[in-house]
Amino acid sequence: MAVYTEVSDTELSTFVERFNIGSLLSYKGIAEGVENSNYIIQTEQGPFILTLYEKRVNEDDLPFFLDLLDYLSERNITCPTPLKDEAGHALGVLAGRPAAIFTFLAGMWPRKIKPVHCAQLGQALGELHVAGTDFPQKRKNDLGIGDWRALFNKCRDHADDVMPGLGDKLSAELDYLEACWPTNLPKGIIHADAFPDNVFFRDEKCSGLIDFYFACYDIFAYDLAICMNAWCFEKDGDFNVTKARLLLSNYRKVRDFSREEVDALPLIARGAALRFLLTRLYDWVNTPKEALVKPKDPLEYYKILKFHQSIRTAGAYGLE
Amino acid sequence: MAVYTEVSDTELSTFVERFNIGSLLSYKGIAEGVENSNYIIQTEQGPFILTLYEKRVNEDDLPFFLDLLDYLSERNITCPTPLKDEAGHALGVLAGRPAAIFTFLAGMWPRKIKPVHCAQLGQALGELHVAGTDFPQKRKNDLGIGDWRALFNKCRDHADDVMPGLGDKLSAELDYLEACWPTNLPKGIIHADAFPDNVFFRDEKCSGLIDFYFACYDIFAYDLAICMNAWCFEKDGDFNVTKARLLLSNYRKVRDFSREEVDALPLIARGAALRFLLTRLYDWVNTPKEALVKPKDPLEYYKILKFHQSIRTAGAYGLE
Repeated sequence: MAVYTEVSDTELSTFVERFNIGSLLSYKGIAEGVENSNYIIQTEQGPFILTLYEKRVNEDDLPFFLDLLDYLSERNITCPTPLKDEAGHALGVLAGRPAAIFTFLAGMWPRKIKPVHCAQLGQALGELHVAGTDFPQKRKNDLGIGDWRALFNKCRDHADDVMPGLGDKLSAELDYLEACWPTNLPKGIIHADAFPDNVFFRDEKCSGLIDFYFACYDIFAYDLAICMNAWCFEKDGDFNVTKARLLLSNYRKVRDFSREEVDALPLIARGAALRFLLTRLYDWVNTPKEALVKPKDPLEYYKILKFHQSIRTAGAYGLE
Repeated sequence: MAVYTEVSDTELSTFVERFNIGSLLSYKGIAEGVENSNYIIQTEQGPFILTLYEKRVNEDDLPFFLDLLDYLSERNITCPTPLKDEAGHALGVLAGRPAAIFTFLAGMWPRKIKPVHCAQLGQALGELHVAGTDFPQKRKNDLGIGDWRALFNKCRDHADDVMPGLGDKLSAELDYLEACWPTNLPKGIIHADAFPDNVFFRDEKCSGLIDFYFACYDIFAYDLAICMNAWCFEKDGDFNVTKARLLLSNYRKVRDFSREEVDALPLIARGAALRFLLTRLYDWVNTPKEALVKPKDPLEYYKILKFHQSIRTAGAYGLE
């Protein structure tokens, strides 16, 4: 559940008054999400989202995230837009936590991924990358190639409990990626967590992206690779090339790939798989057995990693 | 968290279509509540509440609850009103569970109870009791005087772990209440769970009651006693007679007490305290130590019980 901080009716009413959105009529904690506390609030002007930032988010990063959402909204990217209070500030303090109110985004994330969703996502991701090109702030990727070694070291002793031999395989993969990771690929603002539950649709049209709290300055193709891994593999681990082709071909209609990006895509996709494999492994090893929220299976991403290791060129993704 | 059943976007869209409230724009699980899965849904016509009934609710009771809410709404009691689909049915099936959609009730439950809230609650409870007088269906109270013995027997072996001597004290109280429980008091439809989180306010006016899933046919004064216990004791266990006087005096402006009700109120209040003491004790004893949701302290209700044992007449509640 995603309500870690309880807010009282009186303090929230007072907080909302500063935003010129009418009186507070109702607020309810949202069960989804794990990083922050989110409430859906109703005011005389309709629904809004209230977010209280919990300790897993670095407070120093909040101006980056809020400024980015503001910047993208101005450039017609549909994403939650932070409201500004009378004094022009988006970020306030509520119940002792940093807090912000956002526009409400209509749409639902797709529980069953169809090819059309991947086509729409490709276009939306391309538009996001283009819109963010000149955003002046740069936030380092906290879970980029330079961070994987330390993460691996924290859980390597338990890797073989998940699958015999996994520790050595991950160690070798890490050596390879660190040696070969490209430095010449186009970079910019990436979402870095565009999993299905962060992408909303209405009638099979993408209606917006949410949850930009991993957004950072990194390789564009890495963002695409994260999406390919999250959207184009079936539950049984099979790669669905139809979905991947639609994702990539619709992306390149908005922002075309360089030759280097196409060549590097299988390598980047291995990195994107390793990143989620490692965070899942870390959570797997560090979550108490009795915990209510079960950690996600790291081996799902091991299968994805193996697929990318097995191919030679980006042609396997349906790219020409 | 209160989402036990996950609903897919496509099946919910189809479900909503039958209710003539426009297309589904969004749905989010609500973190509050423990009995059922609740979602706040937004359609083209605004917000609604979707409830999926989980196994803790007896399916045979659902027509009673839905018919009651319908009946009360028609009599101007503000409570969630079940919508009816094209075929005239309020109850449907969604994700394999019984499900219903309700009107959205504006308002917030008070985190800090003021005397004015108790005055408003007294009036609202009186209006509820009067409005329900001729409701033709009768549901037995599943947690009434006849059920406490069995509940106690399930946890008496652990009662002394909570407080030395508690088992004997509860046993004696149960003997006394079973011997003296009155049979001549006015009865009707009672809410039976009107705790602060089930009563909404806007600008210190009661804007409605929710969560009628303990509603039943029982002694009116028992409903008042539950409210007195839940609203008129301070966090330190002190009884706030100002709050109680306002609760009772505003209630009797709508539905006056008989002489027998006034005389019996201290006894009824002991029963209402024991009922919540026993269910909390049961949950305390049966909740694993590692559980995320901590059970409520049974001894809070032991203090309340002792207060009612210590007084002689309802004059102690501010009643004249």
